Amino acid sequence: MSLLPQPDLADVLSAAARIAPHAYVTPVLSSRSLDALAGATLHFKAEHLQRTGAFKFRGACNAVWSLTDEAARAGVVTHSSGNHGAALALAARTRGIACHVVVPDGAVAAKISSIGRYGGKVHACAPGMAAREAGCDAVQRETGAVLVHPYTDPHVIAGQGTAALELLNAVDRLDVMVVPVGGGGLAAGTAITVAALAPRCRVVLAEPEGAADTARSLAAGERRIDFIADTICDGLRGTLGEPNFALLRHYQVGVIPVPDAGTLAAMRLLWQTTKQLVEPSSAIALAAILQAPARFAGLRVGVLLSGGNLDLDALPWDAA
Amino acid sequence: MSLLPQPDLADVLSAAARIAPHAYVTPVLSSRSLDALAGATLHFKAEHLQRTGAFKFRGACNAVWSLTDEAARAGVVTHSSGNHGAALALAARTRGIACHVVVPDGAVAAKISSIGRYGGKVHACAPGMAAREAGCDAVQRETGAVLVHPYTDPHVIAGQGTAALELLNAVDRLDVMVVPVGGGGLAAGTAITVAALAPRCRVVLAEPEGAADTARSLAAGERRIDFIADTICDGLRGTLGEPNFALLRHYQVGVIPVPDAGTLAAMRLLWQTTKQLVEPSSAIALAAILQAPARFAGLRVGVLLSGGNLDLDALPWDAA
Repeated sequence: MSLLPQPDLADVLSAAARIAPHAYVTPVLSSRSLDALAGATLHFKAEHLQRTGAFKFRGACNAVWSLTDEAARAGVVTHSSGNHGAALALAARTRGIACHVVVPDGAVAAKISSIGRYGGKVHACAPGMAAREAGCDAVQRETGAVLVHPYTDPHVIAGQGTAALELLNAVDRLDVMVVPVGGGGLAAGTAITVAALAPRCRVVLAEPEGAADTARSLAAGERRIDFIADTICDGLRGTLGEPNFALLRHYQVGVIPVPDAGTLAAMRLLWQTTKQLVEPSSAIALAAILQAPARFAGLRVGVLLSGGNLDLDALPWDAA
Repeated sequence: MSLLPQPDLADVLSAAARIAPHAYVTPVLSSRSLDALAGATLHFKAEHLQRTGAFKFRGACNAVWSLTDEAARAGVVTHSSGNHGAALALAARTRGIACHVVVPDGAVAAKISSIGRYGGKVHACAPGMAAREAGCDAVQRETGAVLVHPYTDPHVIAGQGTAALELLNAVDRLDVMVVPVGGGGLAAGTAITVAALAPRCRVVLAEPEGAADTARSLAAGERRIDFIADTICDGLRGTLGEPNFALLRHYQVGVIPVPDAGTLAAMRLLWQTTKQLVEPSSAIALAAILQAPARFAGLRVGVLLSGGNLDLDALPWDAA
C-alpha cells in the first residue's frame, strides 16, 4: 500500500471553499479556428481573467486564508518576479494584513507596479534565488511576516489545483490537460486534482526549452535544477521545487519542451483568433499541442491559459 | 403625428431571429478597476468576440439572409476596408453563395486576409469612396451580385441594432449607451433599439476628432461630409450615410469627439485590465467616457466594444 502524497484532493477541495468568496470562477473558452488547426477540441481555462490576471491568486489566497489570526497578524512575505507577488498582495488585502514582496532587479515593470497597486510593499534584491531568499529572510526577521513560497507551499499547491477542479466541472470527458510548468505549483496542483477526479485524463506539462528543468528532472528520476533560464516565458523561469518534483513524479505526468519561437507563434494565434491577451507563459500550452499534433489528434483537450500580464510598454504605443 | 423612420424596432427584432442560427450572443464584461477609474458602472458588450471579430457580422448576416433565393443566387458584393468585408464573406458562406469585396489600397493586411479566409473574393481599387463605388458597379455588372452597402443598407442597420438589443436584455436600467460612430450603421441601429425599448437611456456616440463628420452634421442640421479622415481608428473613417444621418438626427443622439491620444490610452487600459484585445475603433467608446467623466458619474453605462481586428504585424513579434 502506497501513501498518497500531500497535499491531496481534500486539500484542493478545502482550498476551493476557502477562496470562493474572493476568487473568480473563470470562463472556459473555445475557438472553431483553433480546433480546426489543432485537429482536436480545445477547452481553454481562462485564468488570465482571474483576479490579478493570473491563476496565482488562487494559491496565494488559499495560503493567506489558511493562516491563524495569530500567524496572520504580522502579514506575509514572498519573493516573486511578478504574478505571485501581485497575487499575494491582493490576497493579503482581502484579509486586511500587510504583504512584503522581494523583487529581483530586471523583473517586468508592469508586474512590479501591480504589486504596489494591490497594496504590497516592494523590496528590491539582486537577481538569483540566493539573493531572493536572503531578502525574504531579512524581511521575516524585521517584521515577523509569514513566508508564503510561490510554489512549494502546500497551501499554494492546493490552491492552484482549483483551476483544474473548475475545468473538470465545466467540461466532461477530457482526455488530456495541458498546463505550463515553471516552479511546479500549478503543475502539481493540477496533477493531484486530475488523478483523483479524472484518472483517465492525462496531464501534460508545457515547458520552455530554455528552462527545461522539469523535463530533465523527471527523465533522470531526481531533481536537475542547475541551469540558467533562457526563455521569453518570464513566468516559467523558476526552479522546479522539491515537493513539486515529488508530486509530478508520483503522478507520472508527461512534459513537452517548447522552443520560444513556437510559443510566440501560438501567442499570436491566440491573440488573433480569441482576442484574449495572454502572456507567453500561457501560450506555451497551445504551442505544445501544435508542436506534437499526433499526440492530441481527435482528443478533448483542456488547456490552462495561466495569465495575461504582459509588458505592454514593449509594444509600440507611441506609433500614432 | 410623426411617422417612425425606417428601419424600426420590428426590423431589429426580425434581424435578431434571422441571425440567431449564425451569430453569437456575445458576453457582457465588467472590470472593477475601470469602474473605479470612471466613477461609473460600465457594462462592456464584447462584440470583438462576435464571429469575424466584429459586430459587422450581425448586419451582414441579416442582409444576406433577407435576400430571396432568386436574388441571392448571383451572390453579394460590397466595398470595405476590412471588418464589413470579412463579415459579408462569412455571412455569404453560411448561405452558400459567392461574395465579392472591393478593397481600397492601404487597407489593413490582416483584415484583407480574413476576407479571403472566409471565402470572399478580393477586388483591389484605389482609395476613396468614388473608386470604391465604381469597383462595386463593375462587379455588379459582371456578376449580377447584389450590393450590400456597409452601413446604409436598412437590413445592415437593423442587424447592427441586435447588439444593443442583447445588451438591454442582459443589463437592467442602463442610463446611457456609448457607441463608436463611423458610417453610422451601428449608431443608427443602436438609436432605433434604445429609443424603443429603453426610452430613458441616452445614446452617446464616440467619434474620432480626425473624422468628426457626424458631430458636425448633427450640429449643422445637415450632412457635412467633406473631410479627409485622419485617425488611427481605421474602422471609423467612413462617411456618415444619408439614412444614418436622418435616423441619428431623429433620435437626437449625442456625440463626443475624441482625439487619437485618448483612444490609444483607453485601448492600453482595456488591454491591461480586461485582457481583451480590442481595436482602436472599440476603445474610443471608453476614451469618450474617461474624457467627459462628469457626464457619466454614478451612471450605469453600456459600452459597445465593436471589434478586435488589429494589425498584429505592427507589433514587435520578432523581438525574441
